[in-house]
Parts: sequence; C-alpha cells; structure tokens
Amino acid sequence: MRIVSLAGGIGGARFLRGLRAAAPDAEITVIGNTGDDITLFGLRVCPDLDTVMYTLGGGIDEEQGWGRAGETHAVKAELAEYGVEPQWFGLGDKDIATHIVRTQMLGAGYPLSAVTEALCARWRPGVRLIPMTDDRAETHVVIDDADGRRAIHFQEWWVRLRASVPAEQIILVGADDAKPAPGVVEAIGEADVVLLPPSNPVVSIGTILQIPGIREALLDKIVVGVSPIIGGAPVRGMADACLTAIGVETSAQAVLELYGADLLDGWLVAEEDRGVALDGVRVQAGPLLMTDLAATAAIARAALELAR
Amino acid sequence: MRIVSLAGGIGGARFLRGLRAAAPDAEITVIGNTGDDITLFGLRVCPDLDTVMYTLGGGIDEEQGWGRAGETHAVKAELAEYGVEPQWFGLGDKDIATHIVRTQMLGAGYPLSAVTEALCARWRPGVRLIPMTDDRAETHVVIDDADGRRAIHFQEWWVRLRASVPAEQIILVGADDAKPAPGVVEAIGEADVVLLPPSNPVVSIGTILQIPGIREALLDKIVVGVSPIIGGAPVRGMADACLTAIGVETSAQAVLELYGADLLDGWLVAEEDRGVALDGVRVQAGPLLMTDLAATAAIARAALELAR
Repeated sequence: MRIVSLAGGIGGARFLRGLRAAAPDAEITVIGNTGDDITLFGLRVCPDLDTVMYTLGGGIDEEQGWGRAGETHAVKAELAEYGVEPQWFGLGDKDIATHIVRTQMLGAGYPLSAVTEALCARWRPGVRLIPMTDDRAETHVVIDDADGRRAIHFQEWWVRLRASVPAEQIILVGADDAKPAPGVVEAIGEADVVLLPPSNPVVSIGTILQIPGIREALLDKIVVGVSPIIGGAPVRGMADACLTAIGVETSAQAVLELYGADLLDGWLVAEEDRGVALDGVRVQAGPLLMTDLAATAAIARAALELAR
Repeated sequence: MRIVSLAGGIGGARFLRGLRAAAPDAEITVIGNTGDDITLFGLRVCPDLDTVMYTLGGGIDEEQGWGRAGETHAVKAELAEYGVEPQWFGLGDKDIATHIVRTQMLGAGYPLSAVTEALCARWRPGVRLIPMTDDRAETHVVIDDADGRRAIHFQEWWVRLRASVPAEQIILVGADDAKPAPGVVEAIGEADVVLLPPSNPVVSIGTILQIPGIREALLDKIVVGVSPIIGGAPVRGMADACLTAIGVETSAQAVLELYGADLLDGWLVAEEDRGVALDGVRVQAGPLLMTDLAATAAIARAALELAR
C-alpha cells in the first residue's frame, strides 16, 4: 500500500509514528510544511521537517514534542552574551548541527528536498520525507499592536508573541510562484490513500495546500482527514488563533467545511463531535487523543479503514 | 606610552597578559595573525584572534591555552553523526557562537577588523586588537606523503597531521595582494615601542611580517623581540617544524638572524642562550618561561626596559 500524508510539526509527527506502526509494510511519503522555515543567525531552520525527522528517527525531546532529546543550549547562551538578536527562538546545540549541515548544502546549491534526503540518511525515519516545495514560501502574519500594523514572520508571532496578538491575516508569501518539490505530485498520483493528520489546518495543512498543484493533485484521490479540533478546542497548540484569523470557527465541523468535500472523502472526529457532517464526506467518530503509540496507531488504523 | 605588539595564538596571548600587567597605563595595540583562519562548516574561524580575545577577556581554557573555559562539544558530536567533514578540528559549542556572529557580520559586508572590534566589545581585552589584514591571506603548507605532493591548509597540517609530515614549503597565499587592516600602519607609526612576543616566528610573526607594508613600517621603530626558542627547542608548540621548513635552525640565534638587525633593536633570550649575538641588536638574557602572570609580566618588563 502506498500512503501519502501531509504533515506539520508535533501533531503530524506523532500521528506519523502511529501510522508507521499501523501500516508497517506501507510505503509512506510525507509532504512536510516548510512555511514556518526561518533563517536565524545565518542558519536555515526547518522546524516542521526536523520535528518529523527527529520524532520518527528517535531523536525527539518527547516531553516537549520538538527539538532534540538531551539538548543543551551553550551556543544560544553565548549568542545572548554577544547581544545578537533574536533571542526568543530556542535553538539547541544538537539542533544547530542539523541547521549547519542544511545551510552548507543549500549554500552549495542543493535544493531543500535533496538536503532533507541527506539529513534523513542519518535519521532513517522509515518514511520518505519531502518538503512541500524547494522554493521560498514563507508564512507571515499581519498583526496590529502597540508597534503598529505590520506583517511579521510566522515564528515571531508563534514563538515570540505566543499568538497572543490577534492575527488579522495569515499570508504565505511566495506561494504563487512556488512549485511542489520533485516527487510530491508523483507520490500523490501513485498513492492509494492520502491522510491529513491532526496538524494545524491553517498554518500546516493549509499552507501545504496553497502550493499550486498540490491541492489539485489531491482532488481525485481518496483523502481522509483527522480532526485537530476536539469539542471546540485544539488538541494541542494554538490552532484556534489561526482559525480565528481566517474567520473560521474552532470546531471539527468548521475545519471539515474549510477542507471541503471536494478535497475530503473521510473525516475522523472525536466521540464528543459525533454529529459533524458534510455532504460527500463520510464522517466517523472515535477516540482521537494520541496519548501513546498504541492509541495513535489505532487512530491511524481507523483513518485507513475509513479510506476503504 | 604606546605599545604595539604582534601576536599569534597561545604564546602571544599569554605574553600580552603579562604585558598588560607590566604596563597597565600603556595604550596597547595588538596586530593579530590571521593566516591560520579557516572556514569550517560555513563558519569563519580566526583561531589566533580568538585566543588573544578569550585570553585577555578571561574566557580562555587555561589548561589548553585555546578555546573556551567550560567548553562543551555537542555540535561537533552531531556533525560527526551526520558524517560531515572535517572532523579533526575541535570546534566547541561556546566557540561556535563567536564564529556564527563573525560569519554573519562578514556576510553582511563588515570587514574582519570591524567584526573583531564588535566581538571585543563583549570581551573587553584591555588592548586594541586588529587583524593583520582584512584581506584573505591564508597559510598553506606543501607536503609530500602517501597521498602525493600537495598544498594543504595550515590547520590541516597543524591540527590533523600535528605537523608530523615534513613541510616542504610554507606559503602565505594571497599575501601579495593583501593590505594591512585599517589602523595597523597608523598604530605602528605612533608606537613608542613594538614588541614581538615568543609566538611562532614563521607562521605567526613571520606571517604578519609578510603583509606588504607592515615590515616596512617597523623598520624605523624600536622593535624588541622575545625568543620563542630556549636551548634549541620551542618553549611550546611546534615552531621547530616550521623553522625546518624554511631552512632555519631551531635556535635563539637563528631566529634572531631570521628577523634580522634591520627589524630588531633588542632580543631577549633565556639564560641558557647567553652568547647569542648579532651586530646592531642588543641581546639580553634572563628568565623566559611564562610560568605564571608574575613571571610573564617580568619578561614583558624586561622587553620594555631593553627598548629604552
């Protein structure tokens, strides 16, 4: 069986670990969000790709959900001593090595997809991980606070401001000119089923769907989504702040409608969201908390069964 | 009093600490060797400038003589896990932060002299530290081993091969086109005395003297050198391997002749080298081991007195 899954960071990575357990013989291709990518101190950082890579490769900080297990922060502390900015992004020492390798390869002319493949040669995540695009498509957030109305990088809104300032708009700068990375459209074309994990529907899944050609490639495939909203609240993270920004209610019903019946064939919701419905989409309710690997594998299994 | 001192790495830095103690009211300008500089993993590393900066700024690993006190090596270990080369250079985590700041500033267009000044704003070394040049002048070593005759970067010979393969030639690539960094010639012009610490006479002091204009500026100044050779052996390091490469004996006499009477006015040697002599140079013997700060300050004081 060939499975394609889109993925953001923590939620997507955890779901993928369950999926790998649920379908050990499947060929899984993961299309990762790169809208959150940022250059810090000259180093190219791809938070979502790395979270997927570290989680599936056994290097993730399990408690935190992102970054490396047993991480240290000597470089960050020294950069602060030099007074250089930004100091709000938590770059760990081990993590920095990944960014150094990536930055060098990008500088040598390799596209991000080739770099990601090279990094995965170490991590052996058990899936094929492809960035959504090799082009620069960067999520910016329009806010209006004491410093005035302006667009800031997604990471500044998410990490520095912790999404506490309302987002007036969320824009994927460069989306129009971005092309899917090599292999993305091909993998979708060959897939028996495409899964949308409970990643952020706006700045993770929504971002990937904005790359011209990706949503179109998905339209005639069997696509099953797992709701990131349970009982009116995000399972994890600040998806509500993102949904509010695009005028969508924080509910399993509203996200289902956001994705739409042209994209989705199946929609998994939590027990408390039983009743959610949309013409043309088969909705199924069940346990949706990814409390451990077994529970997560059961969710992935339910998604695959719904696809049949 | 205005003092200019040339400087390499460990030996130069330690001498400078003594000099600062011996002449607390003097304005000291240090012209640092940058021939050993190297770009590793996309990061610009200036080993000698950093050794001077860390030593005088109180951040040096005292036992090792280079690198940061309390250093960790998480980034290096991770880079090795990725299998990227070179793995023979011991980049520490704290040290890497310095290189990140430097690389970013160089990338933004600042010359190395401005970058060094910015880094020193944190370290407050108590001297004005200027690189010998803002241009690229890189020490290469011609060797002939099992892999054939070839020129390698100085650091590869020094650190990876530990100077165990004889150097056929030591070449400062780019020297002809390099200009002294802003302030170098001016500081020499205004100096009451110029000191040559017991740094490596070939790849540290010798390198600085090869930048067109520096040796010339020194010729009509009072210049006093401290012999890096005691009783036929380098006090520290592998100066003998470098001297052999340029056909000079490892002795206080031979280094005195290498520098020459046109450059030197005074030459400090160890007790066991009493008898060393050259027309036009006042030679004085005394204790020359920089065992602690008091001993080092005494050597610096002797050099300053010899200059009078």
